Amino acid sequence: MSMFNKAAIIGTGLIGGSMAIAIKKKRLAREVIGISRHKSTLLWAKKRHWIDKGSQDLSAIRGSDLVVLAAPVNTILKQADTVARFAGKECLITDVGSSKKQIVNKLSAIFPNFVGGHPLAGSEKRGIVNASEDIFKDYLCILTPGDKTRAAALNRIKRLWLGLGARVAVMDAEKHDRILSFVSHLPHAVAFSLIGIIPQEYIRFGASGLKDTTRVASSDHKLWSDIFLSNRKNMISSMAAFEKNLRRIRSAILNRDEKTLVAILKKANIKREALG
Amino acid sequence: MSMFNKAAIIGTGLIGGSMAIAIKKKRLAREVIGISRHKSTLLWAKKRHWIDKGSQDLSAIRGSDLVVLAAPVNTILKQADTVARFAGKECLITDVGSSKKQIVNKLSAIFPNFVGGHPLAGSEKRGIVNASEDIFKDYLCILTPGDKTRAAALNRIKRLWLGLGARVAVMDAEKHDRILSFVSHLPHAVAFSLIGIIPQEYIRFGASGLKDTTRVASSDHKLWSDIFLSNRKNMISSMAAFEKNLRRIRSAILNRDEKTLVAILKKANIKREALG
Repeated sequence: MSMFNKAAIIGTGLIGGSMAIAIKKKRLAREVIGISRHKSTLLWAKKRHWIDKGSQDLSAIRGSDLVVLAAPVNTILKQADTVARFAGKECLITDVGSSKKQIVNKLSAIFPNFVGGHPLAGSEKRGIVNASEDIFKDYLCILTPGDKTRAAALNRIKRLWLGLGARVAVMDAEKHDRILSFVSHLPHAVAFSLIGIIPQEYIRFGASGLKDTTRVASSDHKLWSDIFLSNRKNMISSMAAFEKNLRRIRSAILNRDEKTLVAILKKANIKREALG
Repeated sequence: MSMFNKAAIIGTGLIGGSMAIAIKKKRLAREVIGISRHKSTLLWAKKRHWIDKGSQDLSAIRGSDLVVLAAPVNTILKQADTVARFAGKECLITDVGSSKKQIVNKLSAIFPNFVGGHPLAGSEKRGIVNASEDIFKDYLCILTPGDKTRAAALNRIKRLWLGLGARVAVMDAEKHDRILSFVSHLPHAVAFSLIGIIPQEYIRFGASGLKDTTRVASSDHKLWSDIFLSNRKNMISSMAAFEKNLRRIRSAILNRDEKTLVAILKKANIKREALG
């Protein structure tokens, strides 16, 4: 038996699109509705039987028992009130936004059955053309219940993600945002900044080191501007910590302080090893 | 007919080892001598017929018509005088060091037939166990002749690298070091710095974004300390330019200046696209 009768995915990009495919193929819902601003996206998904119906209108979520908000953070915040007009009281609401505090604060106050979520999958690739049912497999999905989240709602969303092949961790939104500011948002800021200052005429000399280090700078600028601004305080802290460490390296180079430099780099070697 | 009679590779790590294999397999030299501090490395290479002879002693280069210096930058600088004692006047000398000015300055004064080189291959992996004849294929090798470099010597080293499957660019050492400070040395400094400040307990939440962005922080700390210090002035400039751009991003986040933030990230998207 399916977990859900009618699942609506709002925002069928890389993550939302992949959820639609996986929910459909693993039969976690009897019916999957895709909602997108782009008609071409909906046609693409419909043609491949990844969704049963597509709509450009939020009213299409009517009658759903699961709604997944999968647009960029700022759009999720803007859509919430409209979604509330069409979603029934018993409907389970979740999202996949990359920062959680703003979303959890606002959506917990609106929806009795909201559970925030963030699958640490995805990549610099975008859109439904890169979606696949396997992208969550063995990746961690962090769920961020609020003070009033019902245990039953949390459990169903947990089962959804386990059903999609992910591992699940549960923590509060504040902790999520602090951790993500270091392990995801800061690396993106660094990559955007790094590629930005490479002189155009040097780009052709870039080899695998530059490519790896700046790969995530291909990520959507609008999406990431949203994420940075929605996790503003943590971003400022993690960026400041990074800048301080970089200045330590710069000053060791400036002072020809080989001993300090080797010590910093050796410690980094060990830390990187642990990341796998 | 082979290009060389006896080729000696000093430092049979990832790059030197790969050169030995490729020279041997493509029959670019009749005899290949490997020189390493580590007996195990030489035994590994000898057993696989990647070198004809191995030695821990620089005197083994006697009688070579090609000597490749493939140790870290600082070691190359230290070995030069000893190499000069054993290398004949007609012997072609080249190196693979990642910064060129110090090496070209010193070695051009010692050897009548020296041509500096830097294959932009290699990776965070190290040692002869990761060596392979294919690592130079389609990669760029930059050659950095000095004022007095003979055209015949430059041409033979160029033919050597083309023979190894690389593409070749020629420029002076100063230009090489300026370019590399941006496209290679800075990304390494950034990666070392980034992984260094991720709190240990957050490491397990690191996904592909953090992994890509810090991959080169696995690179050998001693090797990279050498490179940073040998390209000191350019490193200071490129790091300062990067820090300035990062501060622009931080201040846009701090001031909730979405327009500026989006503009910086969008420009980065386009630049990253060009890198391929």
